[in-house]
Amino acid sequence: MLENGIEAFGLRDDAAVLQLPAGCPLVASVDSVVEGVHFDLALCGPGDVGWKALMGALSDLAAMGATPLGALVALCVPGGAGDGELALGVMAGVAEASAAAGCPVVGGDVSESTVLTVAVTVLGTIPDGGPPAVGRSGALAGDVLLVTGPCGASAAGLRELRAGREGGATGAAYRRPVARLRDGAVARVGGVHAMIDVSDGLALDLHRLADASGVGFVLDRVPVASGASEDEALAGGEDYELVLAMNDSAGTVLSEAFVDGGSRLPIRIGTVVDDPQVRLLSGEALPRLGWQHRLG
Amino acid sequence: MLENGIEAFGLRDDAAVLQLPAGCPLVASVDSVVEGVHFDLALCGPGDVGWKALMGALSDLAAMGATPLGALVALCVPGGAGDGELALGVMAGVAEASAAAGCPVVGGDVSESTVLTVAVTVLGTIPDGGPPAVGRSGALAGDVLLVTGPCGASAAGLRELRAGREGGATGAAYRRPVARLRDGAVARVGGVHAMIDVSDGLALDLHRLADASGVGFVLDRVPVASGASEDEALAGGEDYELVLAMNDSAGTVLSEAFVDGGSRLPIRIGTVVDDPQVRLLSGEALPRLGWQHRLG
Repeated sequence: MLENGIEAFGLRDDAAVLQLPAGCPLVASVDSVVEGVHFDLALCGPGDVGWKALMGALSDLAAMGATPLGALVALCVPGGAGDGELALGVMAGVAEASAAAGCPVVGGDVSESTVLTVAVTVLGTIPDGGPPAVGRSGALAGDVLLVTGPCGASAAGLRELRAGREGGATGAAYRRPVARLRDGAVARVGGVHAMIDVSDGLALDLHRLADASGVGFVLDRVPVASGASEDEALAGGEDYELVLAMNDSAGTVLSEAFVDGGSRLPIRIGTVVDDPQVRLLSGEALPRLGWQHRLG
Repeated sequence: MLENGIEAFGLRDDAAVLQLPAGCPLVASVDSVVEGVHFDLALCGPGDVGWKALMGALSDLAAMGATPLGALVALCVPGGAGDGELALGVMAGVAEASAAAGCPVVGGDVSESTVLTVAVTVLGTIPDGGPPAVGRSGALAGDVLLVTGPCGASAAGLRELRAGREGGATGAAYRRPVARLRDGAVARVGGVHAMIDVSDGLALDLHRLADASGVGFVLDRVPVASGASEDEALAGGEDYELVLAMNDSAGTVLSEAFVDGGSRLPIRIGTVVDDPQVRLLSGEALPRLGWQHRLG
């Protein structure tokens, strides 16, 4: 049934052909998830793995303020009995996330492997002639720092699932996270200076934004998701909330745009400061808490 | 050192931003290679793995007649001692192939895994206002079938390497294959009806082109690379020659264009016929020889 990856994804030619809106840039990112490293099939189903893989990749488009055009999925599946079922389960989850995010799967490849691995490339654009794609490096001293929602729900959900409980809303946050595509686009149009998604932990991703911008920050508060601890909010990955840096008055206008668009009110968490050595939460140095790849 | 995939690839933001030439379509494809399935580190070095991964993906752009714009590389590397070195070795090979093909790496991700896996998404375009991207499905009865070069060198090289020999030119064909990007672009401009790259075996890829076009074929000959057997030419993958279907007179003009452009003269191997049941080599049914993914 899965004789060929392209055919498995319902695609026929060697490559997909897409037409971008005239004059609009292409925004592209790749992300991968690996069994035993990023997920455990004892704690989530194949469909969850596919969903999380696509949403995690789409979150990088959200952090640029881009609108998705399509995704290419490389699926590596363990051989042996039942593997076709596993591949189809993952692909079903990819398809659900694809529909939810309005991002069609335009390319795919299926390979045998010893470990389930899903690498997703997402393609997007900046469709509206508004401000360009937002990077991590534009934060300025005096900017306010906002986050699009409380953090830690995914980590709390993982803790619940590991304890043998379903975890309710936090379990769902872990299994079926949602990329903040609308929030990212609204933030870009609203003139945000810098943006990053909370994929590896609020603390670590804040440090990354500050590193890229050559600035420091002073945090007043950490918004903690219901059911999560402050540690989970700071160090838990896969929340996919967005952190925004922008000037104070624009932040007020932006907050109204978020609410008008049906999003939650962004939460003010602190201020950008000039000195890159200053990285404080409640007056103390904030460690680089979060998911660190164990390589190198 | 490889704390974060984006930084490991020298990239800073959540996604890459590219501007396509005005009005030109985007062509995109993904391909992955997995240790123990697609390669064996006893027979090729990490740099070869990176090179082969990018060139294999680029071959799909060649088969569409597209010009590369950039690649996104998801690298999954076994944990433990020496893994940083392995990742850097693979990335060095990717960089060499990138330079050779004129395809910059614009995005990347590095993950831990238990098995070395490289998934490469390639992005290209049709830059010249000429004919559109070429698919597999346009072959017409009466078309001639051409291949851009003799096949089987990669399979012969693998055989030599497995026997403990270096394999000379065939070893190089296995370790450092080259995507026929120029040939594909010339063929598209020359009015080819359908095209496919020989990634999984000449026989299997011919069947796929015929399947997609709803036609049959009658082959007169199989061009066998020096050092290879006819079986290796028919069933060996990773040659990355292109198979072209086009009308006879255009084929003659195209052959001149190939030679004028510094490419080898395409080799005429047979004819497309109307009946999709007819798939013959020297009067006998041609089996679907080649790399078959073992899933499903």
